[in-house]
Amino acid sequence: MATIVVHEPVPSPMEDAEAVMNAVKGWGTNEKGLLEVLAHRTAAQRQAIRHAYEEHYHEDLIKRLESELSGHLEKAMYRWMLEPLDCDAVLANVALKKHSPDYPVIIELACVKDPEEFLAVKRAYQWRYKHSLEEDVASHSTGDLRKLLFAIASTFKYNGCEIDAHLAKAESHILHELIENKAYNDDEFIRIFATRSNAQLNATFNIFKDDYGISIAKSLLEEPATEYLSALRTVIHCITDPIKYFVKVLRDAIHQHGTDEDTLTRIIVTHAERDLRLIKEKYYERDNITLETAVVRETSGDYETFLLALLGN
Amino acid sequence: MATIVVHEPVPSPMEDAEAVMNAVKGWGTNEKGLLEVLAHRTAAQRQAIRHAYEEHYHEDLIKRLESELSGHLEKAMYRWMLEPLDCDAVLANVALKKHSPDYPVIIELACVKDPEEFLAVKRAYQWRYKHSLEEDVASHSTGDLRKLLFAIASTFKYNGCEIDAHLAKAESHILHELIENKAYNDDEFIRIFATRSNAQLNATFNIFKDDYGISIAKSLLEEPATEYLSALRTVIHCITDPIKYFVKVLRDAIHQHGTDEDTLTRIIVTHAERDLRLIKEKYYERDNITLETAVVRETSGDYETFLLALLGN
Repeated sequence: MATIVVHEPVPSPMEDAEAVMNAVKGWGTNEKGLLEVLAHRTAAQRQAIRHAYEEHYHEDLIKRLESELSGHLEKAMYRWMLEPLDCDAVLANVALKKHSPDYPVIIELACVKDPEEFLAVKRAYQWRYKHSLEEDVASHSTGDLRKLLFAIASTFKYNGCEIDAHLAKAESHILHELIENKAYNDDEFIRIFATRSNAQLNATFNIFKDDYGISIAKSLLEEPATEYLSALRTVIHCITDPIKYFVKVLRDAIHQHGTDEDTLTRIIVTHAERDLRLIKEKYYERDNITLETAVVRETSGDYETFLLALLGN
Repeated sequence: MATIVVHEPVPSPMEDAEAVMNAVKGWGTNEKGLLEVLAHRTAAQRQAIRHAYEEHYHEDLIKRLESELSGHLEKAMYRWMLEPLDCDAVLANVALKKHSPDYPVIIELACVKDPEEFLAVKRAYQWRYKHSLEEDVASHSTGDLRKLLFAIASTFKYNGCEIDAHLAKAESHILHELIENKAYNDDEFIRIFATRSNAQLNATFNIFKDDYGISIAKSLLEEPATEYLSALRTVIHCITDPIKYFVKVLRDAIHQHGTDEDTLTRIIVTHAERDLRLIKEKYYERDNITLETAVVRETSGDYETFLLALLGN
């Protein structure tokens, strides 16, 4: 379900490192030459190029790229060249350190990735920042939102497919009672959302819809929408249909006044080798234009070329 | 720092399995014969015996031992024969399912074990019970205690030795302010206790003592002592001096009216191959009698023999 195109035969890491050096050496940078190599290599191949480049030229390729490129292209290339778990760690840190933290990034990591993979991101986070992701989540949020984010970011969820139907019934009833009473910040809400496995929560949400005739996400559409309620709904969307959720994030990034390039880059870079093909299909179904067309409309230059290459063009 | 004694040369797992079979077959059980083998083998050797026994006799050795033994000896042997991570998982589950849950067991796992080891226990828990430890912690506690237990049981803490002295100063000040105002259940309390690394917390607690002339544990000695406050103090003791903490747990188990055999078994079985030697030394320093003497006074029969063997006799 990946979208990137790797042409065979693939040159050796050293040949690629030389091609990269040819693109960056001297005055000016040959961005096209860079993209021809780096946008068409898998994560493992990119890491091999980094190592070959550093061994041969005694400089850090990522630092060199940062000094050669600028703007959205520089940011996108930086993320693309990081080892994927390290990239997720950087994205989480950037999201938390923003003046107005970008909490959905944390929710995506915690609720879409499987628990072992999320754990690997936490290890990468600790390796890079010398403290835990949980510490930063707790330090950069407050109140109910902190309770929710901290709980979902810290739990090591069960990943099995076993479901306790009796429990799902009981907990969908608890959730319905709490929603009826607008007790959204009740600890039970957070307990259920943060600790139950995704399979169990999907069962609970299905029973909720069957019994009460409305999806739990819709029943949380309260006015005025608080950041906390919006985070609860993000959790639900990430658990019930991650592909649809990412389509929504892309649409929001593209359609908002002034494209949100950071989000556009984040989704495309982190999904290009995973499920971006599925996201593209769903995007077209939803918007009647391809994601590529949307990207061409909203971006330009080498940044546009890079995103299109990651999208499989 | 282990206490168990393994005599060389060690018989093969199959020879040991035969000796075990000789001790259990026919009418009656030869407990002495069982203990001569099983109390003097490492965890890896015991697992090898289990496998050899099952392969050769087509029955589960643990189930056979359960049917042959009874009372405290049966419980102790059951725990001893489990793979250590699995044993921790069982102990956590037993602690949570009690009518009045034995929360210190959870705090010990979360605060004394290093984060990777605690994680391995969580995996063993999920493997055995098909749901997460966090779910059970959250379901079997309420109120402030739940907030604390859930937070410490879920966080994947940083295990490095780097300390942020500035942060330690700031957070010891926050803790002091909260204690002055008796705001023990403030979220900041739980945030700091549950997310900071043990090294960082030790720095914070040291600064607290330097600046305010009282240890943080003593400053939480409030009357009437609630279960929550007592849990907070257990967290502090487990982080600052686990050996001293386990000595206290053993002393409480031994000195209380009617020995608490479950706790005595738990500490001896789970530490015999780790740090029981240090615990014994500290116990003697504190009580002026050896732990062995205390065990002889409070227990009897084959259960006594078993505990003494694990203590290195």
